[in-house]
Amino acid sequence: MTRIISLTTDFGTGDFGVGEMLGVIYSIAGDNVRIADLTHDVPPQNVLDAAVILGRHTPYFPQDSVHIVVVDPGVGTPRRPIAARLGKQLFVGPDNGVLTLMLRNARRDGQPIQVVHTNEPQYWLKNVSTIFHGRDIFAAVGAHLAAGVSLEELGEIIDDPILLDLDEPRAIKGGWEGVITRVDHFGNLESNIDASRIADMGAVDVLVGGVTIHGLVETFGEGKVGDLVAMIDSSGVIAVSVVNGSAAGHLNVSQGDSFKIMEAQS
Amino acid sequence: MTRIISLTTDFGTGDFGVGEMLGVIYSIAGDNVRIADLTHDVPPQNVLDAAVILGRHTPYFPQDSVHIVVVDPGVGTPRRPIAARLGKQLFVGPDNGVLTLMLRNARRDGQPIQVVHTNEPQYWLKNVSTIFHGRDIFAAVGAHLAAGVSLEELGEIIDDPILLDLDEPRAIKGGWEGVITRVDHFGNLESNIDASRIADMGAVDVLVGGVTIHGLVETFGEGKVGDLVAMIDSSGVIAVSVVNGSAAGHLNVSQGDSFKIMEAQS
Amino acid sequence: MTRIISLTTDFGTGDFGVGEMLGVIYSIAGDNVRIADLTHDVPPQNVLDAAVILGRHTPYFPQDSVHIVVVDPGVGTPRRPIAARLGKQLFVGPDNGVLTLMLRNARRDGQPIQVVHTNEPQYWLKNVSTIFHGRDIFAAVGAHLAAGVSLEELGEIIDDPILLDLDEPRAIKGGWEGVITRVDHFGNLESNIDASRIADMGAVDVLVGGVTIHGLVETFGEGKVGDLVAMIDSSGVIAVSVVNGSAAGHLNVSQGDSFKIMEAQS
Repeated sequence: MTRIISLTTDFGTGDFGVGEMLGVIYSIAGDNVRIADLTHDVPPQNVLDAAVILGRHTPYFPQDSVHIVVVDPGVGTPRRPIAARLGKQLFVGPDNGVLTLMLRNARRDGQPIQVVHTNEPQYWLKNVSTIFHGRDIFAAVGAHLAAGVSLEELGEIIDDPILLDLDEPRAIKGGWEGVITRVDHFGNLESNIDASRIADMGAVDVLVGGVTIHGLVETFGEGKVGDLVAMIDSSGVIAVSVVNGSAAGHLNVSQGDSFKIMEAQS
Repeated sequence: MTRIISLTTDFGTGDFGVGEMLGVIYSIAGDNVRIADLTHDVPPQNVLDAAVILGRHTPYFPQDSVHIVVVDPGVGTPRRPIAARLGKQLFVGPDNGVLTLMLRNARRDGQPIQVVHTNEPQYWLKNVSTIFHGRDIFAAVGAHLAAGVSLEELGEIIDDPILLDLDEPRAIKGGWEGVITRVDHFGNLESNIDASRIADMGAVDVLVGGVTIHGLVETFGEGKVGDLVAMIDSSGVIAVSVVNGSAAGHLNVSQGDSFKIMEAQS
Repeated sequence: MTRIISLTTDFGTGDFGVGEMLGVIYSIAGDNVRIADLTHDVPPQNVLDAAVILGRHTPYFPQDSVHIVVVDPGVGTPRRPIAARLGKQLFVGPDNGVLTLMLRNARRDGQPIQVVHTNEPQYWLKNVSTIFHGRDIFAAVGAHLAAGVSLEELGEIIDDPILLDLDEPRAIKGGWEGVITRVDHFGNLESNIDASRIADMGAVDVLVGGVTIHGLVETFGEGKVGDLVAMIDSSGVIAVSVVNGSAAGHLNVSQGDSFKIMEAQS
């Protein structure tokens, strides 16, 4: 059975890092793997963005896929390289919080959690650069994992992986205040307010960028081209879009700005 | 025999969509497929561009490859999801005209044409977002098709797929007037005038962006670096280039601008 | 045993070229290959950049991988299409110097070197465009090579492949003067001065962009965010970085600018 290795990095697509990792993985795991490039365009050193991306993609992958993530501003410092089983998936990357969402989800769902400090150098490349563990440790360890090496062989089990302090929306009078967590490729504004937060509310207004949007639509087709609409997006959070356009451009807002959902005034 | 699934989208490479589709495809079709990313950089919602790209790439693929295309401004409206056999290839995408060139080519060549409305939900993901059919319908249906499900099982045969109204060049006194259909990565200007249109003409001039280019070259090597040249490009249409430079930058023209080919004045 | 075919081009990711090459390779080599996209973002027509990229990636790939490189400003001129065995790897591309580093490394290490002019058209596509040999010759030849055709069958052995005139650092009083060979995705400045050049020097200063950096660090962690630091980078050359920032942006320098390493003044 072929195993999938996914890659999520901030290397861009015009540089050395991706190709060197591909070479290392194919050299170690050869016929056992297929490689899926999730993205190499995480904003440089943006660990939160990488954590959010992993949290969204990985649930769609087959059991026992190995997800290697290299957004690693702390490379060469004492930050640990880690690998983990979280639910049905495997992960390899720096211990800098990049697995926070996957850990939180596995805990919430009562699924298996096992994290190891991958400190067994026989599973690394022989020469380890102090500034590129993506190639010399993470790609090598991920390939060994896909080829059948167990987590326990890779290093010592730990129980204190670094967690990011994720923003959660807070209850305010008449609704919830959250933030814009991400502006996507189309200019859609994704918030940190899950659809479950509004299950008991009636008609709602969304307040973002100084405007109020009345009600949620179910599809883009309910608006006309250019309309500003709010909806539950494909990941289950409240989002704001311009039909066939860019809400970020229209409202001049960005990541981290306030995003409220309120009971509509009758 | 491994099947190829190709992906053509407007998702960009820094976002969620591509990775989620990869996960769905590998989860369903596992060891049966290899995935070829044609491009994820179709300009957002530009159905015509996606149609042109499919028309160019797909003839080079092996028999029975499955081409999934997701440029889908009408997602969530009543527009149908469709799948098709057109000649030796299979296609999955929204019914918005994106298969126009492949349909036209199959008709012209007397090759098999079969189109189905993929309305059998057992081949979709269980939960279908109203705004991301790429993941929940098209990736899933394409993977089932590659894994051996027949077109007929996926839904009802239809005979009225949407077709785009493609520009054709028109005969004018002494030649043909067409348009620039696409500016490529190097700044080359591709027209909609096929080389067959000029088979019976003698020496020709190309008129574009206010300049006249005398004659066609066969290769870039016939010009000097910086020269503006016209030629038959690698897809068989008349195109204009600057040797080792950008014709689009040099002439300040863009998609849709006039492009004429005329018998040369003697 | 599956063979790896890697692709290095200047086609960008939004255009036709990559997909057409993928189709040709899968049509010829089918189940025998996996394709690794090293990069399609080589700056247009920059043969030196492609040569440097190949020199860095390919040592990490499995024995007998086939590396196809298409940065080909001379397409359609008499420049020869070539294929080569250089050490443990195979290469296909235009004879324009793009294999210079691989050739130099194989000579230095006393490894096998065999170069052929791939002039046997039965291994090309039937119709060869004068302006896209990437698809019609290089992809086809690379796929046949991966599928088991020998180098000798592809054409005539030659001993005069084109070589680029690579900059080497020159000895100056108290140190070495080289150049910035490449600015990477993070804005790091990579020089052409190999770490071996300074093995016998004591404490050193790096002079670049009008500033002097005292000493080398081993990791980014030795500096504070925003510090300008010099180090031996992951490919073994002297490089300059800003911790979690862009040295190129900070110093306003670019490819080709002077880069000196000097014995420190005591």
